[in-house]
Amino acid sequence: MQKVKVAVLGGSGYTAVELIKLLLRHPGAEITAVTSRQAEHVADLHPSLLGRLDLQCEPFDPDALKAKGVQVAFGCLPHGTSMESIPPLLDRGIRVIDLSADYRLRDATVYQEWYKETHHDAKNLAHAVYGLPEVYGDTLAGARLIANPGCYPQTAILGLAPLAANRLIELSGIVIDSKSGVSGAGRTPKLTTHFPECNESVSAYSVGTHRHTPEIEQALGDIAGAAVSVIFTPHLMPMDRGIFSTIYATPTKPVSEAELTALYRGYFAGKPFVRVRTAPPATKDTTGTNFLDVCVKVVRGKVLVLAAEDNLIRGASGVAVQNFNRVFGFPETIGLL
Amino acid sequence: MQKVKVAVLGGSGYTAVELIKLLLRHPGAEITAVTSRQAEHVADLHPSLLGRLDLQCEPFDPDALKAKGVQVAFGCLPHGTSMESIPPLLDRGIRVIDLSADYRLRDATVYQEWYKETHHDAKNLAHAVYGLPEVYGDTLAGARLIANPGCYPQTAILGLAPLAANRLIELSGIVIDSKSGVSGAGRTPKLTTHFPECNESVSAYSVGTHRHTPEIEQALGDIAGAAVSVIFTPHLMPMDRGIFSTIYATPTKPVSEAELTALYRGYFAGKPFVRVRTAPPATKDTTGTNFLDVCVKVVRGKVLVLAAEDNLIRGASGVAVQNFNRVFGFPETIGLL
Amino acid sequence: MQKVKVAVLGGSGYTAVELIKLLLRHPGAEITAVTSRQAEHVADLHPSLLGRLDLQCEPFDPDALKAKGVQVAFGCLPHGTSMESIPPLLDRGIRVIDLSADYRLRDATVYQEWYKETHHDAKNLAHAVYGLPEVYGDTLAGARLIANPGCYPQTAILGLAPLAANRLIELSGIVIDSKSGVSGAGRTPKLTTHFPECNESVSAYSVGTHRHTPEIEQALGDIAGAAVSVIFTPHLMPMDRGIFSTIYATPTKPVSEAELTALYRGYFAGKPFVRVRTAPPATKDTTGTNFLDVCVKVVRGKVLVLAAEDNLIRGASGVAVQNFNRVFGFPETIGLL
Amino acid sequence: MQKVKVAVLGGSGYTAVELIKLLLRHPGAEITAVTSRQAEHVADLHPSLLGRLDLQCEPFDPDALKAKGVQVAFGCLPHGTSMESIPPLLDRGIRVIDLSADYRLRDATVYQEWYKETHHDAKNLAHAVYGLPEVYGDTLAGARLIANPGCYPQTAILGLAPLAANRLIELSGIVIDSKSGVSGAGRTPKLTTHFPECNESVSAYSVGTHRHTPEIEQALGDIAGAAVSVIFTPHLMPMDRGIFSTIYATPTKPVSEAELTALYRGYFAGKPFVRVRTAPPATKDTTGTNFLDVCVKVVRGKVLVLAAEDNLIRGASGVAVQNFNRVFGFPETIGLL
Repeated sequence: MQKVKVAVLGGSGYTAVELIKLLLRHPGAEITAVTSRQAEHVADLHPSLLGRLDLQCEPFDPDALKAKGVQVAFGCLPHGTSMESIPPLLDRGIRVIDLSADYRLRDATVYQEWYKETHHDAKNLAHAVYGLPEVYGDTLAGARLIANPGCYPQTAILGLAPLAANRLIELSGIVIDSKSGVSGAGRTPKLTTHFPECNESVSAYSVGTHRHTPEIEQALGDIAGAAVSVIFTPHLMPMDRGIFSTIYATPTKPVSEAELTALYRGYFAGKPFVRVRTAPPATKDTTGTNFLDVCVKVVRGKVLVLAAEDNLIRGASGVAVQNFNRVFGFPETIGLL
Repeated sequence: MQKVKVAVLGGSGYTAVELIKLLLRHPGAEITAVTSRQAEHVADLHPSLLGRLDLQCEPFDPDALKAKGVQVAFGCLPHGTSMESIPPLLDRGIRVIDLSADYRLRDATVYQEWYKETHHDAKNLAHAVYGLPEVYGDTLAGARLIANPGCYPQTAILGLAPLAANRLIELSGIVIDSKSGVSGAGRTPKLTTHFPECNESVSAYSVGTHRHTPEIEQALGDIAGAAVSVIFTPHLMPMDRGIFSTIYATPTKPVSEAELTALYRGYFAGKPFVRVRTAPPATKDTTGTNFLDVCVKVVRGKVLVLAAEDNLIRGASGVAVQNFNRVFGFPETIGLL
Repeated sequence: MQKVKVAVLGGSGYTAVELIKLLLRHPGAEITAVTSRQAEHVADLHPSLLGRLDLQCEPFDPDALKAKGVQVAFGCLPHGTSMESIPPLLDRGIRVIDLSADYRLRDATVYQEWYKETHHDAKNLAHAVYGLPEVYGDTLAGARLIANPGCYPQTAILGLAPLAANRLIELSGIVIDSKSGVSGAGRTPKLTTHFPECNESVSAYSVGTHRHTPEIEQALGDIAGAAVSVIFTPHLMPMDRGIFSTIYATPTKPVSEAELTALYRGYFAGKPFVRVRTAPPATKDTTGTNFLDVCVKVVRGKVLVLAAEDNLIRGASGVAVQNFNRVFGFPETIGLL
Repeated sequence: MQKVKVAVLGGSGYTAVELIKLLLRHPGAEITAVTSRQAEHVADLHPSLLGRLDLQCEPFDPDALKAKGVQVAFGCLPHGTSMESIPPLLDRGIRVIDLSADYRLRDATVYQEWYKETHHDAKNLAHAVYGLPEVYGDTLAGARLIANPGCYPQTAILGLAPLAANRLIELSGIVIDSKSGVSGAGRTPKLTTHFPECNESVSAYSVGTHRHTPEIEQALGDIAGAAVSVIFTPHLMPMDRGIFSTIYATPTKPVSEAELTALYRGYFAGKPFVRVRTAPPATKDTTGTNFLDVCVKVVRGKVLVLAAEDNLIRGASGVAVQNFNRVFGFPETIGLL
C-alpha cells in the first residue's frame, strides 16, 4: 500500500498522542513530522511513545513540511492558533485535517459570538468541510480542509440524526445532558482538573455557554433542514476518557421504542462505527475505539437517546483518521479496528 | 444531655456504618444494639469501626431490644424485610426511623406497582411520616414511624421545591438527570459494581423504571398541590459517593436567574442543611456532610436546577439523624456539623 | 499471509476479551471458536465486541475444535480446570498456549504446595515450555504446550534478569513489592473487588503466601543457575490495569547506576518489548501495550529495580500473542505494536 | 469548656481545610483567624466551608493576631516561608503548631542538605518539639513550638517503633515502600498531578532523595538510641487520600508473628489512635480519621510491617489537633473521634 506522508501539528496534547498511536498502526500512513516547541523528541513529550516512534520534534515551518513531502497535516493546535497556521499549508498544497474548532462553524459571526475571537480566514472557511463522515461523507473525498468535529457534538448529532432527518421530534428545546472524562479538558494543568479536586466528584460546567452548542445546532439544522435549538449541559466525570450523552426530545407524534430502534438500525446501516444497542451503552465499551454506541428509549412520552464514545478516539483522533481514510480513498475502517 | 438509646437494624451495609459513625459523635445518642447475622462484632462487619465501637452484633429480637431500653431503631434492612421487622417494634413502643422504601409511598398500590411486592402493613403505613425535614418538618416531632427519604429523591424534591411551591414551572415532563456514586448500589457484590466493570465508565440504568420516580412525584405533588410527573434517569459514576442531579423544567412565565436565586434563598432560609449557590455545586463539596447544595440557572428559556449531596449522609444516614433530632427535640444540626 | 486458526477457551474473562481484541488485529490469526457456557454470543459476554466479532460461543468440545481446523487454542480457563481440558487438545494435535498456572511450575510437588491441588497431568507438564520469550525464547518455536507466564512474575523476572544472569546480587532475601490494578483479580464479583470497597484504598493481600512466588523463583533460578528466594508482597491499587513492582536487592559488589543501566540496555538489546528507562516508569505509559518498562537505581548501597506493565496485555494476553508469534514463526512484534 | 482562640496560617491548601473542619467540631477551639491572600472569604478558598465557617480571610499580621487574642497558630505554610512567619508569633507569646518541615530536623545542616535551603531560625529550632504524641508525648504539654510530623514518617516511625525500641531489627538497610494518594502533593496544579496523567497509573518518585528520609531516621534513631538508616521509596497512587507503607526489616534474632503482635499491642496500649491489626490494614478504613493502623508479619525470616493512615488527617491535620490537645491539656481524643 502506498503510504501517505503525514505531519502532526502541535504534538504535545492528548489528541496528538492518540493520533500518533493510531497512525503508527495504519498501513497507509507514514508519520513524517511532529511539530512542537515543548520537547526535543516525541518520547519526551509522551513517554508512552518510547520504542514506538523515533522522531525528533521540529518547529512549525510550512516550507520544511512541504520539502519533506508532507501530503496532509493533522492540526492539534488550539483554536485561534489553527487559523494562523493552516492557510500557509493549504497554500503549499498540503491538505489539512484540523482538530481545532476554527473551521467548524460556517458563519464567522457565530464563531465570534461563542469563541470571543474574530475569524480572519474567511477564504478557507468557505471551502472547509465538516468532517462527520456518517452525515457529510459525500463531501469528504478529496477535500483540502476538513474541520474535524468536536467530541460532545458527535454524540448529540449522531444520537439525534435519525430523528432529525425524519422530523420526528420538536426541533427546539432539545435537552442534551453530557458527561465527559477529564482528558476532554486538555493537558494543561488547572485547579479544576487537579486530581484531588475532580476525583470523587461530579459537577456541571459552562452551563448554557459551552462552545459546542452552535456546532451541534448547525449540523442538526443541516440534517433536519430547519433551525434547531438545544439546551446543552456538560459535566465533568472522575475518569480519564469517555463521553456519555443523555438526550431528551419531544416526539411530534406517538412513537414506540421498537419503531425507533428499527429506524436507527436503518439509518446507520453501512456505517460501521455506529453501533445501535437496545440496552443503555457504557462508555467503557467504547474506550480505545472509534465506535459511537447509541440506544433510543421512550419514557412517558419523551424520546431518550443515550450515546457513548471515547472522547479522544471517536471524539477526536479516531474520526480524524476516518476522515483521512475518506480523503485519500482508503477503506473507511482501515487502521481503526 | 440525656442520651437516647438507639438500635441499628441490619448493620452490615453502607448506610448502617455511616449511621453508626454519626451516632458515635452525637451527644444525645447511645448505640445500644446493632443487629446482624453476618458477623460477631461490629468491627468484623466494618473494620473501620475498630477502636470506635466495641459491640457484639446480635440477632434481631424485638423483645431483647425492648429489654435493653431501646427507644428508637434505625432500620437499615432491605425493602420487603423492613415491613416484617418494624411492626413488632412499634407494638413494643419503640420508635422507628426506617431507611428502606417500605413506608415512603402513601399508596400501597403504587408501592406494589413499582416494587413488585404486596404491601402488608397498611396499619403502620397509615401513620408513617415522610422524613424530609425541610418539607415535612412540622409532622416529625414525636412521630412513631418515619420513612427516611431516598437518596435521589431528596435532590429532586428539594431542588424543585421552591419552583413547585410557587407553581413557577409546568408540572409534567420535568427531566431529572441524576448521577450517582457506586455506594448507592449497596454493599452486595454484583458484576455491574465490580471495580473493573464500573470504574472508568459512565452508564445509565433503570431508564424509565427506577423506583424513586413515584417517591419524587408524591412529594412534589404535595408541595405543588397538584399532580407532578417526571422523567427520571439515573446514571452510575465511577466514584464512591455523591449524587448530582441536573433538572430541566419549563417555566410557566418568564423568570430571571436573579429572581429565582432570591426565591431559593428565601425558601431555604432557616434550613441549615440546604446551601444555595450561584455557581454549579460539586458533589465533593458535600462529601461526608448533611448538606444539599443547590443552584438554579436559566438557559434559553428553560430553568435548570443543579443539586448535589453525599448519597450516604444527606441521602440516607445524615438525614436519618436529622429526623432523629426532630423526633426527640434535639437542635436540628446537633451531631451533623 | 496464511492465517492460523485459533480457538479461545473460556471466553468470559478479562484475559479472553483482551486476547480476542489483539487477535482481531493480527494479520496471521483467525478466531475460529470461542468457548463459554455463560452466553450465546461473544458480544453478550463482552458488549465491547459488538460489531467487531460476530461469533456464537460454543461449549468446549475437543472434537468439534479439531473438526473446525483449529491449530492452536489459547486457554483462558481457571487453574485446575486447565489441566483437565488441555490434554485432549494436545492428543488431537492442537497446540495450546495456556494462560493459567497449571503448567508453569516444573515440579508438581511445588504446584501442590502452593495451589493446594494435586497435579494430574505429569505427561504434558514434562514438555510444557515457560512462555517468557525474552528468557526462554529459543525453546518456543514449534512448542506444543506453552505455559504463559503470570502477570506479577514477568515484572520480577525481567526486572531482575540482568542482575541474576550476571550474579550481581545476593540471591536470597530479594524484596519484591508489587502494586496491581483490580482487573488482575479476575471478573468474578467479590467483596474485596466491589467498587466502594477497593476504590480510594490501598491494601496488601496474600502476604507471604501468593502463588506467584515459586514461579518467580523458578525462572530467576534458571537465569542465575542457582536457587533464588524472594519476599513477594502484592498490593491492590484502585485502578483497572497495570502492575508496578519495586524490587530491592543487595549487590554483591559496589555498582553504579550508570553501569547497571548500560548492563540492562545490553541485556535487552534486540528484545523489542522491554524498554529500559532512566526515569521511573509509570504504569500508564504501558497501558494497552505489550511493553514492560524497567529502570534500575542505586540507593544507599541497595539496587532498586522499578518495573511497570499492563497486567492484561504484557501480563497475560499480549505475551500470549508474542508466544503465538514465536511458535508459528511470525515476526515477534506482529499484531502487538 | 473554655475555648482556645486559634489561627490558621495559610488557609488555601488541603491541610488547612481539613484542620478547619476538625477545629469546627472541637469543643475547646475557636477559629479566630484564617490568613490567606488568595481569596476574601474562607468559603471562596474552599466551597465546602460554605455554611460552616463565616470568616473573612486576612493577611498575615502577627500584631493583628495578637490583638485578636490568638493563643495558638497552626502553620499551614510551605517550608521556608514557615521559618519567616513563625518567629514573630513566638515573640508575641503565640504558640505555634507548625505543619511544615521547618522545625522537624534538629540539625540545621541536615535540613540544608535535604531541603537545599539554609535554616535561619536556630533560636527556635533549639526548643521546637517533634509532635508525634505516641513517641514524644511527655515533651508536648505546654510546648511553645511544635513541629508537626510528616505524613510518610508517621507510618514508618510508628510502624517500626516497637521493633526499634526493643532493638529487634537491624538498624540499617530498612526498606520502606510507601504508597500515597495525590492530595499529599498539595493543591498547586502540576502535570504530574493533572488528573489524566496520574489517574489509572502508579509510579515511584523522588527515589532515594525524598525529604522525609532524614525525619524518619532522626525519630527512629531517638527510639532505638542508635543511628538508623532507611531506604525510602514513595509512590503515587490514583486516589485522593491515604498512605500505605510496607516495611521490610531484618530481625536480629528469630521472632514469631504472635510474639511481635503481642509486643505491638503492649507498646501501643493506652495510645488510642494506633490500632494493631492481625490482618493487613486498608487505607480506606482510616479515611477521615486520626487512626494509624498497623500489622506485623513474618515472611521467610523477614519482618514485614504494614501501616495505613489518612495522610491529611493522621498525617497532618488530625495529629496537629492531637498535639493541640496535649499542649492545652485537653483529653487526647477530643474532637478526633
